[in-house]
Amino acid sequence: MLYIVGLGLGDERDITVRGLEAVRSSHKVYVEAYTSLLSFGLSPHGLSKLEELYGKEVAVADRETVEERADAMLSEAADTDVAFLVVGDPFGATTHTDLVVRAKKRGLKVEVIHNASVMNAVGVCGLQLYRYGETISIPFFTDMWRPDSFYPKIQQNRRLGLHTLCLLDIRVKEPSLESLCRGKKCYEPPRYMTIHTAISELLEIEEMRGESAYSEESKCVGLARLGNKDQMVVAGSMKELLEVDFGAPLHCLVIVGETHPVEEEMLEFYAIK
Amino acid sequence: MLYIVGLGLGDERDITVRGLEAVRSSHKVYVEAYTSLLSFGLSPHGLSKLEELYGKEVAVADRETVEERADAMLSEAADTDVAFLVVGDPFGATTHTDLVVRAKKRGLKVEVIHNASVMNAVGVCGLQLYRYGETISIPFFTDMWRPDSFYPKIQQNRRLGLHTLCLLDIRVKEPSLESLCRGKKCYEPPRYMTIHTAISELLEIEEMRGESAYSEESKCVGLARLGNKDQMVVAGSMKELLEVDFGAPLHCLVIVGETHPVEEEMLEFYAIK
Repeated sequence: MLYIVGLGLGDERDITVRGLEAVRSSHKVYVEAYTSLLSFGLSPHGLSKLEELYGKEVAVADRETVEERADAMLSEAADTDVAFLVVGDPFGATTHTDLVVRAKKRGLKVEVIHNASVMNAVGVCGLQLYRYGETISIPFFTDMWRPDSFYPKIQQNRRLGLHTLCLLDIRVKEPSLESLCRGKKCYEPPRYMTIHTAISELLEIEEMRGESAYSEESKCVGLARLGNKDQMVVAGSMKELLEVDFGAPLHCLVIVGETHPVEEEMLEFYAIK
Repeated sequence: MLYIVGLGLGDERDITVRGLEAVRSSHKVYVEAYTSLLSFGLSPHGLSKLEELYGKEVAVADRETVEERADAMLSEAADTDVAFLVVGDPFGATTHTDLVVRAKKRGLKVEVIHNASVMNAVGVCGLQLYRYGETISIPFFTDMWRPDSFYPKIQQNRRLGLHTLCLLDIRVKEPSLESLCRGKKCYEPPRYMTIHTAISELLEIEEMRGESAYSEESKCVGLARLGNKDQMVVAGSMKELLEVDFGAPLHCLVIVGETHPVEEEMLEFYAIK
């Protein structure tokens, strides 16, 4: 049996009771580490907060483990119970869909244990979830690569009066360009995009394309460390949010569409005073 | 302190460890009963599965309690710890946003404990969450009332190649027309829209409007009892899904947009054989 268990967004105590039972009954426990494990106390060597709660060892499966060694992991799951832990909900990312497909192709039993993800927890800012359009991802720009495929999507959402959830780039365990050239693997330090960087990129693209999809006056909500004790939610224009220090990662951003009165009341609470 | 705790989608064991701690430490526990508590073993009188797990009494707060008596509940939360439990995630419905606004206006401390909701758990069917457009709600038609405001939204989503999540109507504790006329309250039995009814209504509207937003050949995914042990996921055309018995509620429906290869692989697993 393969359990795919969502850990939720905060810390180790955000696992569900069902998820905790699955983990405790599993022979082998992997945790996926290539999105974010910032608040779960996971270090490459030390005992993590997860291990303390579970009373058993947790193996960190980084991107390479999952993509290159999925078959070995699935073979284990054919003989015994294996739990694969994922930050947020298991279906936040394509990779996990792929893992389920592979498992099902091998005839394995798969049980998915859901949890909160940014896709629904963003509701905390007061904007109604059913009034969001397509979700976009904002990648880190480099000198040579400044993709703007998110622009027409924001434009579309705003034309329809819908809110836009912007997921911000996370770069963990990226091979450095230098190491790729030299043919041996060595990694860049992890990078998490801030709301500040996201807005700067958005405004750069707007200036280049000049189609007024949005402006520095456009109302947004910045959310940092969603689901954590010290979560931070601030509503304001892009220009205003550029001045806010949102602190440690993870960050995400919502570009506000047309609002209803209850939505506005909530945004007022989160407005910059 | 007011805790607003998401219960998730399956049964009493889908609460998070953090949520369970909040409930156990609270002086008073309410559970909101006007969306769905089908699988949580809650009866108006008997001891529920929730109460067994929590080791304390749970008061059922139906729509009237929440809307009419919110102030009394918030007064309690000013003096002691109160937990308000919600099926799914706390921000699936507007009502809870309103409760947070009221609590914050009174200067109360509010802690939201997130969980899975249909808005992210629907990812289990393999269609990527960031490729959904605006979510729609399909209401029960009556003889006099056959609203089709969802139609242009589906049309829009499909034009953009996006998937459409259709939430199906739930009628719990609706005053009967007869009782309203007689001036005393008495309620209709609960009604939960099936995938069959939803598709029939969709096709009726398409026939009336004739703008080819979709047809009986349009690919869909029907999901029943999402997050439960006996959850059912079937992919097929509207016409095909009309022939499927999805069993007990709750049901929801996805109208599929343009698909990527990994999405298609997953849909194949769920296709009608």
